[in-house]
Amino acid sequence: MIDPWGSSNVDYEKIVEQFGIKPFKELLSDINDPHWLMRRGIIFGQRDYGRIVEALHKKQDFAVVSGMMPSGKMHIGHKMIVDQILWYEKNGADIYIPIADMESYSARGVDFEASKELAIKEYITNYIALGLDFKKKNIQVYLQSKNIMVNDLAYILSKKVTFNEMKAIYGFHGSTNMAHMQAPLIQVADILHPQMDELGGPKPTVVPVGPDQDPHIRLTRDIADRFKNQYRFVVPSSTYHRFITGLTGGKMSSSQPKTAIFLSDTPEEAEKKVKTAKTGGRESLKEQKEKGGDPSNCVIYEMLLYHLIESDSALEEIMENCKNGTIMCGECKTQSAELMKEFFVKFSSRRDKALKEAEKVLDSAQSC
Amino acid sequence: MIDPWGSSNVDYEKIVEQFGIKPFKELLSDINDPHWLMRRGIIFGQRDYGRIVEALHKKQDFAVVSGMMPSGKMHIGHKMIVDQILWYEKNGADIYIPIADMESYSARGVDFEASKELAIKEYITNYIALGLDFKKKNIQVYLQSKNIMVNDLAYILSKKVTFNEMKAIYGFHGSTNMAHMQAPLIQVADILHPQMDELGGPKPTVVPVGPDQDPHIRLTRDIADRFKNQYRFVVPSSTYHRFITGLTGGKMSSSQPKTAIFLSDTPEEAEKKVKTAKTGGRESLKEQKEKGGDPSNCVIYEMLLYHLIESDSALEEIMENCKNGTIMCGECKTQSAELMKEFFVKFSSRRDKALKEAEKVLDSAQSC
Repeated sequence: MIDPWGSSNVDYEKIVEQFGIKPFKELLSDINDPHWLMRRGIIFGQRDYGRIVEALHKKQDFAVVSGMMPSGKMHIGHKMIVDQILWYEKNGADIYIPIADMESYSARGVDFEASKELAIKEYITNYIALGLDFKKKNIQVYLQSKNIMVNDLAYILSKKVTFNEMKAIYGFHGSTNMAHMQAPLIQVADILHPQMDELGGPKPTVVPVGPDQDPHIRLTRDIADRFKNQYRFVVPSSTYHRFITGLTGGKMSSSQPKTAIFLSDTPEEAEKKVKTAKTGGRESLKEQKEKGGDPSNCVIYEMLLYHLIESDSALEEIMENCKNGTIMCGECKTQSAELMKEFFVKFSSRRDKALKEAEKVLDSAQSC
Repeated sequence: MIDPWGSSNVDYEKIVEQFGIKPFKELLSDINDPHWLMRRGIIFGQRDYGRIVEALHKKQDFAVVSGMMPSGKMHIGHKMIVDQILWYEKNGADIYIPIADMESYSARGVDFEASKELAIKEYITNYIALGLDFKKKNIQVYLQSKNIMVNDLAYILSKKVTFNEMKAIYGFHGSTNMAHMQAPLIQVADILHPQMDELGGPKPTVVPVGPDQDPHIRLTRDIADRFKNQYRFVVPSSTYHRFITGLTGGKMSSSQPKTAIFLSDTPEEAEKKVKTAKTGGRESLKEQKEKGGDPSNCVIYEMLLYHLIESDSALEEIMENCKNGTIMCGECKTQSAELMKEFFVKFSSRRDKALKEAEKVLDSAQSC
C-alpha cells in the first residue's frame, strides 16, 4: 500500500485513536478490487465497515448516503466523493444523495430556491460529468426541503433526543436558533431513511465522510440504536477520507480561490494552477538531486495520488524517482499539469452537455 | 347581551387583563349578524380582530385556521369550534384545518397512522355531520406530517427563534426532547402558511382558540412580525372562547367520561347524561321557589346557552323563569334533555352517513 501521507494539517492518526474510528486498511484485503482511494489510504478510517464488506461479498442490498451541501463552487477535492459513489454504484449499492438545502439555509442563510439552482447548475452537473447516471433507478437525489419522508422521520426520531444531548455534541446554547438545532436531525433522517419499509427495509448503509463529520455519524448511530425495536435499523457504517491539500499548502477551500482548482475552471486555468502549486522540492536543484524531493509534503504528488494516475505502479515509480532525485519539480509539474489539462479537456466538454440533463434530474426525482 | 357567566374555574376577566387580550364585546356592534357564541359572550376576547371585521365588511380575502388534535373522542364542547368554522365559511373565509398529528406524536406518543385514523373516524366525521362540507374549495384540511409547505415554513421561521425564547414561553429545559420543542413551530407555520404566495399571499387570518392556547398565538404574532419584510405577513388575529363546563361541574374532558357528552353517544345516552348534570338549584324546592335558581352556576343552562337554544329571547326567558323561581330544575332538565336528544337523533343519523365521506377527505386533500 502506498503511503499517501499528505501535507494536510489534520492529524488523522490522532482522530482514529481518539474517537474510536478503526483503520480502514484492516479490511482492505477483504474487498474485491478496492477503490484506489481505499488502496492508497486516502480512505483511512471506518466504523462497522465489516457489514458493507459482507454485503459486497454476499451481493446483499446495501445503501450509500452521500449528501451535497450547495454552497459555493465544487473544487477538484470534491471529485473524490463522486469517485466513491461511482465505485459503490458499480458494486450494487442503492445510492442516496440528499441535497442539504435545509442545512444550507440554517448554516449559511442560502434560501431553498438558491440552493436548488446551485445544486443543479454546479453539483448535479458535475456529478453527471464525472460519470454518475441519475437516470438509473438505484440512484436517488432529493432536496431535503422537498422530502416529506425525511422530514417526518427526523421529527419522529427527535423525540428520543434532548436539547442537552445536542448541546453536548454540537455546543448549542440558549441563543442557538431552532433551525440550526434541527439541521443535524434532518441529516440523521437522511442517513436512516433508506432503511424505511417503503424503501426496502433495514439494510447496511455506509456514509463516506471527512473526519469533521463524525459527530453526525455518532449521533446517527446512537439514534438508530434507540429506534432499533421500532424500525429494526441496522446501525449505519461510515468511512473517513483525508482531504486534498490546497494549492498553497493549507486547506483547499472554495471560499479561497487561490487554494483551489474548480471543476468549472477551463483546461488552461487548471493547467496553470497546477504549475503554481506548492511542491515538496528542496531549496536548490543541487540539494534536491542529492537528497531527493519530499512527496509526502507535495501538493503535486497529492494531485497524482488522488486524481491523475490510475496505476499504482506508475505512481510508485514517480514517488521513487522523486525521492531519489531523478525527477525535479519543474519536470514533474509540467507532466502533472499536462495530465490535469487532459482531464479538464474531457471533463469540460462533458460538463457542457451535463447541464441540460441536470436541469431535469430534480423534476423527475421529486416525489412525496 | 346575555351574560353567560358559567361555572368554569377559569377566571376569564383576569386573562383579558393580564395578557392584553381585548374584550370581544367592543367589536360586537360592528359585526353583521354575529354568531350566537359572539352575541352570548362565549367568545369573550380577541387580538386585532378589527382586521377581520374590516375584511368582513369589505368582503376581502381572509383566512381562519382551526386545528384539530386527534386524541380521544370529541365531546359536545368541541362542537363550538365547528359552529364557529361554519359561520366563517358562510361569511366568505378560506378555512384551514390542520390535523396536529405531529403534536399528537410528541405530546402524547400517538403515531401518525393512528392519528390519521382517529382524525378520519372521529374528527372529520363529526365535522361533516355538524355541517362542514369538505368538498368546498375554500376548505383545506391536512395532516401536518404530510404537508411539506408547512414543514418547510416552520423550518424557515425557526431561524429567528432561539432556544431561550422557547424556554421562556413553554418552560422547556435541557431534557426536553427535540420533537416537543419543534411542535409549537409547526403550529406557527400552520397559522401563517395561508399567507404564502402559493395560497394567495398576505391576508388577515383569525385563529379561534381557548385562552390556554394564547402562548402559541403570541409566539406566532411575534414571528410574523420578524418575517414581515420577507413574507409581508399580516400579523394574525385571534379570538378566545370560554369552555363549556363538564357534567360534574369541573372541566369537560374526553379523558374523564363522566364529565362529558360525547358526539358518539346515542340520543338516549346523551339524554340520560343531561339529566345527571349539576344544576344551579337550591337546597330545597321551597328555597328555590323563594330565591330562584342560579343559571350562572348551572351546567344545564350552559348546554342551552352554548348549543340547544337558538333564540336569544327564548334563552333569556328561561333564565328569567329560573331566577324568579317559576321553573324548577327537574322540569328544566327534562326539557333540556329532550332538546339534547332531538339534536342527537338528527346528528347521529348524519354521523353514520358522514363516515364514508370522511374516508375520502384526506385522500383528495393530500397534495404536496
